[in-house]
Amino acid sequence: MAHQIAIIGASGYTGAELIRLIALHPNMELAYLVANSKAGHSMAQVYPHLRHLKLPDLVTIDQVDFSKVDLCFCALPHKTSQEVIRDLPPTLKVVDLSADFRLRDPSDYEKWYGNPHAALDRQAEAVYGLTEFYRDEIAKATLVAGTGCNAATGQYVLRPLVANKVIDLNDIILDMKCAVSGAGRSLKENLLHAELSEGYNAYAVGGTHRHLGEFDQEFSRLAGQDVRVQFTPHLIPANRGILATTYVKGDPHKVYETLCAQYEAEPFIHVLPFGETPSTHHVRASNFCHIGVTGDRIAGRAIIVAALDNLTKGSSGQALQNANLMLGEEETTGLMQVPCFP
Amino acid sequence: MAHQIAIIGASGYTGAELIRLIALHPNMELAYLVANSKAGHSMAQVYPHLRHLKLPDLVTIDQVDFSKVDLCFCALPHKTSQEVIRDLPPTLKVVDLSADFRLRDPSDYEKWYGNPHAALDRQAEAVYGLTEFYRDEIAKATLVAGTGCNAATGQYVLRPLVANKVIDLNDIILDMKCAVSGAGRSLKENLLHAELSEGYNAYAVGGTHRHLGEFDQEFSRLAGQDVRVQFTPHLIPANRGILATTYVKGDPHKVYETLCAQYEAEPFIHVLPFGETPSTHHVRASNFCHIGVTGDRIAGRAIIVAALDNLTKGSSGQALQNANLMLGEEETTGLMQVPCFP
Amino acid sequence: MAHQIAIIGASGYTGAELIRLIALHPNMELAYLVANSKAGHSMAQVYPHLRHLKLPDLVTIDQVDFSKVDLCFCALPHKTSQEVIRDLPPTLKVVDLSADFRLRDPSDYEKWYGNPHAALDRQAEAVYGLTEFYRDEIAKATLVAGTGCNAATGQYVLRPLVANKVIDLNDIILDMKCAVSGAGRSLKENLLHAELSEGYNAYAVGGTHRHLGEFDQEFSRLAGQDVRVQFTPHLIPANRGILATTYVKGDPHKVYETLCAQYEAEPFIHVLPFGETPSTHHVRASNFCHIGVTGDRIAGRAIIVAALDNLTKGSSGQALQNANLMLGEEETTGLMQVPCFP
Amino acid sequence: MAHQIAIIGASGYTGAELIRLIALHPNMELAYLVANSKAGHSMAQVYPHLRHLKLPDLVTIDQVDFSKVDLCFCALPHKTSQEVIRDLPPTLKVVDLSADFRLRDPSDYEKWYGNPHAALDRQAEAVYGLTEFYRDEIAKATLVAGTGCNAATGQYVLRPLVANKVIDLNDIILDMKCAVSGAGRSLKENLLHAELSEGYNAYAVGGTHRHLGEFDQEFSRLAGQDVRVQFTPHLIPANRGILATTYVKGDPHKVYETLCAQYEAEPFIHVLPFGETPSTHHVRASNFCHIGVTGDRIAGRAIIVAALDNLTKGSSGQALQNANLMLGEEETTGLMQVPCFP
Repeated sequence: MAHQIAIIGASGYTGAELIRLIALHPNMELAYLVANSKAGHSMAQVYPHLRHLKLPDLVTIDQVDFSKVDLCFCALPHKTSQEVIRDLPPTLKVVDLSADFRLRDPSDYEKWYGNPHAALDRQAEAVYGLTEFYRDEIAKATLVAGTGCNAATGQYVLRPLVANKVIDLNDIILDMKCAVSGAGRSLKENLLHAELSEGYNAYAVGGTHRHLGEFDQEFSRLAGQDVRVQFTPHLIPANRGILATTYVKGDPHKVYETLCAQYEAEPFIHVLPFGETPSTHHVRASNFCHIGVTGDRIAGRAIIVAALDNLTKGSSGQALQNANLMLGEEETTGLMQVPCFP
Repeated sequence: MAHQIAIIGASGYTGAELIRLIALHPNMELAYLVANSKAGHSMAQVYPHLRHLKLPDLVTIDQVDFSKVDLCFCALPHKTSQEVIRDLPPTLKVVDLSADFRLRDPSDYEKWYGNPHAALDRQAEAVYGLTEFYRDEIAKATLVAGTGCNAATGQYVLRPLVANKVIDLNDIILDMKCAVSGAGRSLKENLLHAELSEGYNAYAVGGTHRHLGEFDQEFSRLAGQDVRVQFTPHLIPANRGILATTYVKGDPHKVYETLCAQYEAEPFIHVLPFGETPSTHHVRASNFCHIGVTGDRIAGRAIIVAALDNLTKGSSGQALQNANLMLGEEETTGLMQVPCFP
Repeated sequence: MAHQIAIIGASGYTGAELIRLIALHPNMELAYLVANSKAGHSMAQVYPHLRHLKLPDLVTIDQVDFSKVDLCFCALPHKTSQEVIRDLPPTLKVVDLSADFRLRDPSDYEKWYGNPHAALDRQAEAVYGLTEFYRDEIAKATLVAGTGCNAATGQYVLRPLVANKVIDLNDIILDMKCAVSGAGRSLKENLLHAELSEGYNAYAVGGTHRHLGEFDQEFSRLAGQDVRVQFTPHLIPANRGILATTYVKGDPHKVYETLCAQYEAEPFIHVLPFGETPSTHHVRASNFCHIGVTGDRIAGRAIIVAALDNLTKGSSGQALQNANLMLGEEETTGLMQVPCFP
Repeated sequence: MAHQIAIIGASGYTGAELIRLIALHPNMELAYLVANSKAGHSMAQVYPHLRHLKLPDLVTIDQVDFSKVDLCFCALPHKTSQEVIRDLPPTLKVVDLSADFRLRDPSDYEKWYGNPHAALDRQAEAVYGLTEFYRDEIAKATLVAGTGCNAATGQYVLRPLVANKVIDLNDIILDMKCAVSGAGRSLKENLLHAELSEGYNAYAVGGTHRHLGEFDQEFSRLAGQDVRVQFTPHLIPANRGILATTYVKGDPHKVYETLCAQYEAEPFIHVLPFGETPSTHHVRASNFCHIGVTGDRIAGRAIIVAALDNLTKGSSGQALQNANLMLGEEETTGLMQVPCFP
C-alpha cells in the first residue's frame, strides 16, 4: 500500500511543488493537505494547475488523524514550523522545509531569525537535509530539516572544496542570482510583476542573509575551523532558478577534479566539462543541479557556477528525495522529471 | 521490450519536447535521433537540459536502420516533411508534427502552403491527429498528421458547437494569444528577446494564417456546409502557451452543456465551472487543455476561452498521445505530468 | 513664472508617471506632492528612479496651501477621489485621473462602481477628458475627468466609426490585452511576478468590466441610440501597454478612410498604412497611439488594432495633455518623448 | 542653426537610441541616417517606434555630403568602424560607439579583437570617451572613442578607488548582470526570447571578455602599475540594464567617501546613502548611474553595486554627452529624461 502523506502548509509554492511531484510518485498517496487559512477550499481553487488531480480538500491541522500518516511534510513559515512540529506525534516522520531546524545551535537560530527556539527537544534529533552529504543519517531520521535554497546551491559548490582544502578558506565569494518564487506567494511590493519585470538588484548585501547561518555552520564543521564566506543574493526577473557564481582562490583543475570525484555517482548533481557554464534554463522544474568550473586569466583563481531550481532541488524536490530515503524508497523515485525547456 | 522510437528533426523545440516526454515513458526507447544539420553532436550539446539522459547521438537520416524502428516521429519543417516521409518504408508507423499531411485536399495544401504536394500517395492514408475526435482511425493508422497548435486549440472549443449547431456558423471569432515557442528555434528578428519582451502585437491579421486551412476543412466537414471563421493570432511575451478567446452567438448555457457533455470523460480536456476562465499558467508544460465558458451582458452571446501549452498538447504531447494509440499503449502513458506553476 | 502644480495621490504609478513627464515640462513646477499614507517621506524613498529630481517631500492634503496652486492632478482611487475633490476650492483647476467623474449620470456611476456618488455638484461641471474629442470643453473646464485606459483605447478605434455609422452598431467586439501596471501598485496575488510572468488569461469576461460604463455612455451619445459593445480584457505579462483588437462589420477601406480623416492632424494618434498592425512595443512610455486597419478574407469585416501605453496616453499623459489645454499651454508640451524601444 | 548630425549605423539598437535622444535635443538636427543594408527604407520601417518623427530616409554612406555635417556618430560593428572612420574627412568631429578606438595600444586591440588595427593614424588622436574622467580632452577632440557598456559601469565604481588606492589592487572582482540589448539586434540563438526568458547564465567566464582590455588599460594607467581585475558577465532576461556587483578589499566607509567626493558634482552619477543598493529598474531608459556601497560582516571588505542602462549611459547617452561637449553645448542637454518605471 502506498505511503500515506500529509502536507502541512499546502497553500504555499513549496506545498504546491510537493503536490506536483508526489502526484506522479508511484508509492505515495496524499492523505491530508493542511492550510489553516484556506481550509474548506479545494486545491483547484487555490492552485488551478492541480485541477485534474484527485486531491483531498484543504483542512485545518486539527482535522488530521496523524495515526494514519506515514510521513508529514511541513511547508510553513519559520517560527510557525517549530510550534507546529513541537506538537506533532514524536515518532511521526517529518520533513520540514522551513528554517526552523537547520541550525544545530539554538543560539545561532536566535541570532539569525530573531526569536528564541521553541522546540529545543526536537532540534536535538533533527538531521540537516542536504541529501548527498547526510544520506545515512537522513535514512534513519525522524525529523529532517530541509536546507535553504541558496544554502543548498552554495554547498554543492563549496563543500567538497572546503572539506578537501583545495581553496583558500578566507576568501570565498558567493554571488547568487535568485528567481522570485524563492520569496514565496507573499504580497510584497517588490515581488509585483510591475516592480520586478525588466529590472534586477542585489538585496541583503553585506553578510546579512539568513542562509549564512547554514554556510557558517556547515563549512566550519567541515573545515574544523571558523569559515566565513561572503554571500550576496540578487533578485532576477524570473520565476524559478538560482545561479551561484563562486569566486575562490585555488587551482581550477584541482577544483574541477575534486567536484568531479565528489559527484561522479550522484544522480542529480552534474559537473559539466571543464570550461562550460550552466544555465538556470537547463534545470528548470527539475531536481538536477549543474555545476561548471572555469579558470581565470589570473593564475590560482577559479570560478564555479552552479544552477538549480529553487523550488525543486532547492526545496520540495530535496524534501521528497529525503522522504524517499526515510521511507525506504529509491532515492530518485518521482524525481526524474526532465527539465522544462524552453 | 520497449517500442523502438526514432525522432526525425530532433534539434527543434518539438523534437526536444518529445524527448522530454518520452524519457519518462515506461514502454518507449529512443533508438534514433535524427538532425542532419547537427549530426555527430550529442543531444547535450544541442539541448543541455537533456544532459542527464542516456540518449543516442544525433545522426543523419541515412544512418537510421528503419527495420529496427517501431514508430517514427517526424518533427521537420513543412515541405521537407513530405519529401522525407515519402521515402520512408510504407509500413512504418509515422506521426508527423508538420503541416504536410493535415489537409486532405492537396489543392488546399498548395493554396495555404504555396508549394505542390510532394507525397500524394501518403496523403490518401493520412489520418488527422486531433486525438479526441479521431481516436479509432488513429489507432489503426500508419501515418498520422499532427494538427497545428492553434488549430487544435480552436477546435477543442468549436468542434462540439459546430457539430451540434448550437452557435451561429456565420459569426465565429477566434482571437488567439500565442507564446513565442510556436515559431520554433528560428533566427528571426521578431523572436529576439529584445524585440518581444514587454511588448505584444497581432500578426497574420485578416484571415491569412495557415491554420485556417485546418479550421475550414474540419468545421465545414462537421457542419456539412462551408464554414469560415475569423482568426487573429497575437504574439505574447511568453515561451509556452496558447489562449484562445472565442466569440460566438448562441446560448451560453447550451454552449457550456455541449462542451461538458463532449469532454466529460476526456482525460486531458477540462471544462471549468461556468463563468470561470483558464490561464496558460495552469497548463504549462502539460498535456491538459482548460476551457471556460461565460455569457455576455448581451443575451445570446457566449465567450469561450481555452488554454493549452502549444509545445505539449498543441504539438509533441498530442503526437505522443497518438503514438500511444498506434502502439496499443494506454493513451495517457507518459503524459500525466502536472503543469509547472509558478 | 511656471504654473504651480499639485499632485494628490503621488505615490501610485499614475502619480509617478505624472512626475516623470512634468519634470521635463518647461512651464510647470511641482509645488506639492500629496500621499497621506507616505507623508514625510521623500519621493526618492517611494520611487528611487526619481532620485535625481529636486522634488518636495510627500505631505498630507492638510498641508497644502491651495491658494498657491494653479492646477491639481488627483490620482487617487475611485470613491476617495470624489470625497477629496468635493472639498477642494471650487475654482481650482482639477484633472482627476480616477473613475469618479467619468460617468455623467450618477446612477450609472452607482451601477458600475457600487457606491452612491458623493460629489454631485462637481459632477455637473465635469468634462470628459478624451482630449482629441473634447478639446474645447476641456480648455474651458475647471474639472476634467480623465478616461479609463481601456476606455480611451477603445474609443480611439470606435468613436469615428460609430459617429459616422460606417459599421454595424450591434456587433462590435473589443478584445483587449492589458499590461499589469493598469492595476496599480496594489498588493494582489494575481499581480505577483511569479503568478503573472509567462502566463496570461482573460478577466472580467462577459460584459462586467467597469470601463463599459464609459463605452456605453459615449457610443450611445455619438450614435443617438443605445450602443452596447462586447469587451474582454486580458492580463498580459508586461508592465506597460494596451493592445485593442477590434472586430467590426463594415467595409475595411471605409473604416480606414474614416480613421485617417479623423486623425490626420492629430499629433499623438497615428493611423498606420492599411494592412499594417501596431505593437505596444512601439508606443511604450510615450503619449502616442498607433492604429492599424485590416480587412478579413470574409468580405464586410474589418479588424482594427490599436496600441497605446496605459500609464501615458491611457492616463497620466492624457492628464497632462488636458492640463496643458486648461492652462493655455501648447497641448503637446512635455509630451513628445520618443517611445522607449527596445 | 542647429548642429547637423549624421548617424552611420542607424539601423542597430544604439543607432535607434541615438535618434530617440537627439529627437528631443533643441540644438541638433538629424541630417543623415546611414545604414547600407537598409538604404532606401524609412526609419519607420526599420523602427516603427520612431514613426512620428520627421526623419531622413536611410542612405548608403556614399550618399552623404559630409561637408554639411557638423558631427558624425558611428554606431557600426568593430572592425567595420575603423575602415569607415579611416576614410572620413579628418577634421570631421566623430563619436565612435564601437570598440575600434578604445585601446590606445594597437597591439592590445589586436590581442582582444583578433584583427590588426586598420586606422592607426586616427588611433593616435582618439580620446577615450568616459565623459566624467576625460571631459577636457573630449571637448577638444575630433575623434572620441565611446567606451564599452560594461567597461563604463566597472570604471564608475573602480576608477576613484584605484586612483586613490583605497582598495587592494590585486583582489578586485566585478560580477556583472547584463541585459540582452547589449548584444545588439543580432540573430543569435541565445538571444531568442524562448532561449532567454525565465533563464540566466554566466558567459565569457574566466577573463576572456573583451571589455577587460579597457579595464586593464585604464586601471593600470591610473595606478601606475599593472592592474588585472576579475570580470564575469551574466546574461539576464531583461532588455536594458547593467548591474555590477563589485567585491573589493578595503574600508567600506573610505570607499564610500571616495566615491561621494568624486561624484558630488556630477549630474548623472548618483551615490546612494551608505548601505543602500541600486536597481536597474531605477535608471532604465535614462543617462543616470546609481552606485551603492555596503560593508560586509567580514571587516575590511566592501561591496559596491552600480546600475546603469547599457543603451543610454553605457552607449548612446554617453555618446551624446560627449557630442555636446565637442559642439560647445551644455553637457546635459537632451539627456535629462527621467528613468522609465515601472
